[in-house]
Amino acid sequence: MTSEFDAISRLFKKRTPYIHPLTQVGNGDDASVHQVPKDKELVISTDAAVSGVHWPEDMPLDIAGHRAVCAALSDLAAMGAKATWVWIAVMAKDSPSLVKMSTGIVQACHNHQIELAGGDTVSSATNAITVTVAGLVPKSTAMTRGNACPDDEIWLLGNLGLSAMGLEQWFAGKHEGDFVSSFQRITPQLEAGEQLRELGVRCCMDVSDGLLQDANHIAKASNVSLNFVIEKLQSAPSFKKLAHINKDKALKLTLSGGEDYALLFTAPASLHQSLKKLGALNIGDCSEGNSARLFLQGSEIEYNVKGYDHFD
Amino acid sequence: MTSEFDAISRLFKKRTPYIHPLTQVGNGDDASVHQVPKDKELVISTDAAVSGVHWPEDMPLDIAGHRAVCAALSDLAAMGAKATWVWIAVMAKDSPSLVKMSTGIVQACHNHQIELAGGDTVSSATNAITVTVAGLVPKSTAMTRGNACPDDEIWLLGNLGLSAMGLEQWFAGKHEGDFVSSFQRITPQLEAGEQLRELGVRCCMDVSDGLLQDANHIAKASNVSLNFVIEKLQSAPSFKKLAHINKDKALKLTLSGGEDYALLFTAPASLHQSLKKLGALNIGDCSEGNSARLFLQGSEIEYNVKGYDHFD
Repeated sequence: MTSEFDAISRLFKKRTPYIHPLTQVGNGDDASVHQVPKDKELVISTDAAVSGVHWPEDMPLDIAGHRAVCAALSDLAAMGAKATWVWIAVMAKDSPSLVKMSTGIVQACHNHQIELAGGDTVSSATNAITVTVAGLVPKSTAMTRGNACPDDEIWLLGNLGLSAMGLEQWFAGKHEGDFVSSFQRITPQLEAGEQLRELGVRCCMDVSDGLLQDANHIAKASNVSLNFVIEKLQSAPSFKKLAHINKDKALKLTLSGGEDYALLFTAPASLHQSLKKLGALNIGDCSEGNSARLFLQGSEIEYNVKGYDHFD
Repeated sequence: MTSEFDAISRLFKKRTPYIHPLTQVGNGDDASVHQVPKDKELVISTDAAVSGVHWPEDMPLDIAGHRAVCAALSDLAAMGAKATWVWIAVMAKDSPSLVKMSTGIVQACHNHQIELAGGDTVSSATNAITVTVAGLVPKSTAMTRGNACPDDEIWLLGNLGLSAMGLEQWFAGKHEGDFVSSFQRITPQLEAGEQLRELGVRCCMDVSDGLLQDANHIAKASNVSLNFVIEKLQSAPSFKKLAHINKDKALKLTLSGGEDYALLFTAPASLHQSLKKLGALNIGDCSEGNSARLFLQGSEIEYNVKGYDHFD
């Protein structure tokens, strides 16, 4: 199979002709070589996606390939970086799997005008894709999890819960369900991430595991509490879509559904109007503390991942 | 299993405390952030290693983890880069597998003083590791496959065939065989790579798939022929070690055995003495053409991967 894989690997390269102007040595050598402008910093992240874990085994593999790249790019969006390069390792059960995964990967690179700067294609008993993405930010401006302040407001840009609902529909055999595309088609918010950084936002992350779980990462890294207001979360368009099905479930999915890749960020009140104009939704406020907290009608309520059906 | 994986992942981070001075945001955020000095270029490569494909399924997983990192670092050695950062995706069947793989990974980072700048730990039906490595080179000095000249001499630094022999011993059940450590313990020639670059070597690669197969990559990229002299290859210490077993086999493994990660490079004759002093072995000369060729007693001989037993 090796030579067949090699052939596809070459095809891969031909289908990703874009080369970034800062690239000195592109795909095809032992490593790629890149310049980094002196006023910029390099931002890098690696993500793995595995068949049967990160996507259902019966989902088309081009969709899996596309998702894997876009999920990784979302990390660059969360840092406010301009996405520039990607390196991919494709682990494939057979040649048809490799071809399908590569098709989605190539599409994602093309859609976001990212250079495929290198990679590895190998055989494996389990289809899997790992994606390393790199981008650039002006020096000392990357948005991190550790920069929230107790006086900040909390904001959301993007959907919550739709992807989890889509996955549920897929597993229930409703492959044409209304929400399935929300799971299958990830849109990394790269432009929005850059806009937030330019506005002066300093603390941001993408919601991949669920709002409250991820918010705890900011709380711990910044040593602040993030106080979410359920009434505000209920005004999110994604909540309203989900509420058509079931209001309890809508809240559950909003608080804990993963993989919508919304941007969760905090900012001083001085940015309130600018952020509203960008389409962001204010969903709470920070305070002294170090945890994610939930408020309904002005009172704090206990949040339990497995037991929040009593909320409305 | 997720929370258990998370716990190990945190452990992972604690066991790799080294942070490179150019790192602005280290392991634990959505992405890591790094400065690149203005006189340097960034060199990056990604490699995948899969259980049952890149290492025998019955080999200890800490060895697999160590190998995966060192194989990736070898790509930086081949470019003449100073290894600086690594990002790892570990796909593990279960927690004990994850712990074992991470132990080897951590050791490799520690041994080579590389910062583990980020990663992902996920569950998978197949144990696998992908490693992205990054290093720095002075501007426009990276050694590539495309820089060989027709007048260059061909050089080798490192062993050929020992790793393939070790793997054969392992599969034969000789887990304590003399050559097994050559397969299990990869030494990326990072210092040597930097020395070659400093000397002015411009064309280099690491031998991962076998000498002649890899030499063809240089031949195609540089549009030169690489003419190997069997008598010179037979003077290599690794050939002599293998010849104790069988001379025919020694040659076969020297020409096509993979994963010793020797550096194969070309250089003008003016560097001959300096390269000898470094311990490199001159194994042939380049010429006009675009293929890897083999010479015995002054005459070219046909090389056939599956049928070279008639050579001596």
